[in-house]
Amino acid sequence: MKVIDNIEELKKEIKALNGSIGLVPTMGALHDGHKSLIEKSVSENNNTVVSIFVNPIQFCAGEDLDKYPRTLEADLKLCKDAGVEIVFTPTPEIMYEGDKNNLTLICPPYAAVDKLCGKSRPGHFDGVCSVVAKLFNLTKANKAYFGQKDAQQLFIIKKMVKDLNFDIEIVPCPIVREQDGLALSSRNKYLDTEERQIALNISKALKLAQSDYKKGIATKRSIVDNTLKLLEQMDVEYIEFVDDNNFEFVDALDDKTRVLIAARTPNSNTRLIDNILLK
Amino acid sequence: MKVIDNIEELKKEIKALNGSIGLVPTMGALHDGHKSLIEKSVSENNNTVVSIFVNPIQFCAGEDLDKYPRTLEADLKLCKDAGVEIVFTPTPEIMYEGDKNNLTLICPPYAAVDKLCGKSRPGHFDGVCSVVAKLFNLTKANKAYFGQKDAQQLFIIKKMVKDLNFDIEIVPCPIVREQDGLALSSRNKYLDTEERQIALNISKALKLAQSDYKKGIATKRSIVDNTLKLLEQMDVEYIEFVDDNNFEFVDALDDKTRVLIAARTPNSNTRLIDNILLK
Repeated sequence: MKVIDNIEELKKEIKALNGSIGLVPTMGALHDGHKSLIEKSVSENNNTVVSIFVNPIQFCAGEDLDKYPRTLEADLKLCKDAGVEIVFTPTPEIMYEGDKNNLTLICPPYAAVDKLCGKSRPGHFDGVCSVVAKLFNLTKANKAYFGQKDAQQLFIIKKMVKDLNFDIEIVPCPIVREQDGLALSSRNKYLDTEERQIALNISKALKLAQSDYKKGIATKRSIVDNTLKLLEQMDVEYIEFVDDNNFEFVDALDDKTRVLIAARTPNSNTRLIDNILLK
Repeated sequence: MKVIDNIEELKKEIKALNGSIGLVPTMGALHDGHKSLIEKSVSENNNTVVSIFVNPIQFCAGEDLDKYPRTLEADLKLCKDAGVEIVFTPTPEIMYEGDKNNLTLICPPYAAVDKLCGKSRPGHFDGVCSVVAKLFNLTKANKAYFGQKDAQQLFIIKKMVKDLNFDIEIVPCPIVREQDGLALSSRNKYLDTEERQIALNISKALKLAQSDYKKGIATKRSIVDNTLKLLEQMDVEYIEFVDDNNFEFVDALDDKTRVLIAARTPNSNTRLIDNILLK
């Protein structure tokens, strides 16, 4: 496995690869969710490239850029054990030369970002799309793997690929959870034992929404009410309902409805997201 | 030569090409300026792809989208005579599926667009970059050819390629002029005989600026004064001076200074641009 921190060497090594290339873009602090993406890529491609890059331009002012967990040594071991060919670990200076306020960016349309996570994180998805496009261009990957936990991100990246005709297949991968249901996230490291118990209510609320829907007793109203009760100790940013095909808000629930929650924990103010498809 | 109007067939034919690919993106109404780009591409690549597409998203409200000259038959003849392999002639519906206000766009930085042509044409360069990126991705070209008449466009596209790591070489090509100096432009078709004489003063002003500079008698002030005198029958939008390396405005002239003019003709209100490097 090659660990590469600069663009010239990456280009050279990519050129030297034979066969198909799978890309798993990450910000490091790899957990079993990332591992599932990497393993899927390894199983579907001749070569897998993992990028580990805490992308400054997708963090907003006041967010956790500086304290975002960094666990490079463990990340590299996970990649090696999974059979990755190349790990790309650039610095921000390598990825963004010059003035960070003077960059060409990829901007998803207003309708896609003016909701859910985009609403509280202005510019976040511009930063995500731009770094992902750079990685597509640098790695010439045939497939790229993204987790469904970041459902809005996945939708926006699929739209970018379609709108800008990138020649790459986006492979969505299911959310990986702890045994008790907590969705894996690098930000779970911020939680103490008490907060972890409180955070568990997010996945409980989503499970309840799904089971009520399957029983035929769920409405948007009932789901919101139940969720707010379960999350009374958290600061709820949104509970929303979108059509999974176009990410537009829906008036009534159906099999294609995705329920999405963002909420903050009471002590460390950690922002967590999770979601579920009703059917 | 293959003439292709849809994306699936284009992808198939691009895949079937052997050797290097040169791309010449155009809006049709081809003139000798375009011809020089095409001939350069043919001489430098195994295959040349010309796109002919009047890109609606780079026109602003009130601009000449509907009356923009369309001369497809003559364009195809020019391409065939020059030795082009593929001409791509999509419709707007093929290039932009669905709602045109709901597209992922490529947005050059504020500093690059908040001046010169970008100032009077809001969104213009977003539209240019987005369609050019689509063409890069669709054709997988190794080189793309752009004329220096659209100097700000050329700068912005080079910046896009660098910022987003597109694996393509941008080849700038010199401005092609009529014998009397008028820079070739598809929009010259809008000019009547009288206006053509008036428009000629743009290139005269630029030539004068260059010769005064070489004599050591030019200042920004003297160039602006001389230009405004020569263009007194036109509506001058800007006379500006930038460093050709970074397109930043300069205080004093030097060998790297590019002088740029945009002005409108009195009868048909045709907007013309031209520029010159002082040395």
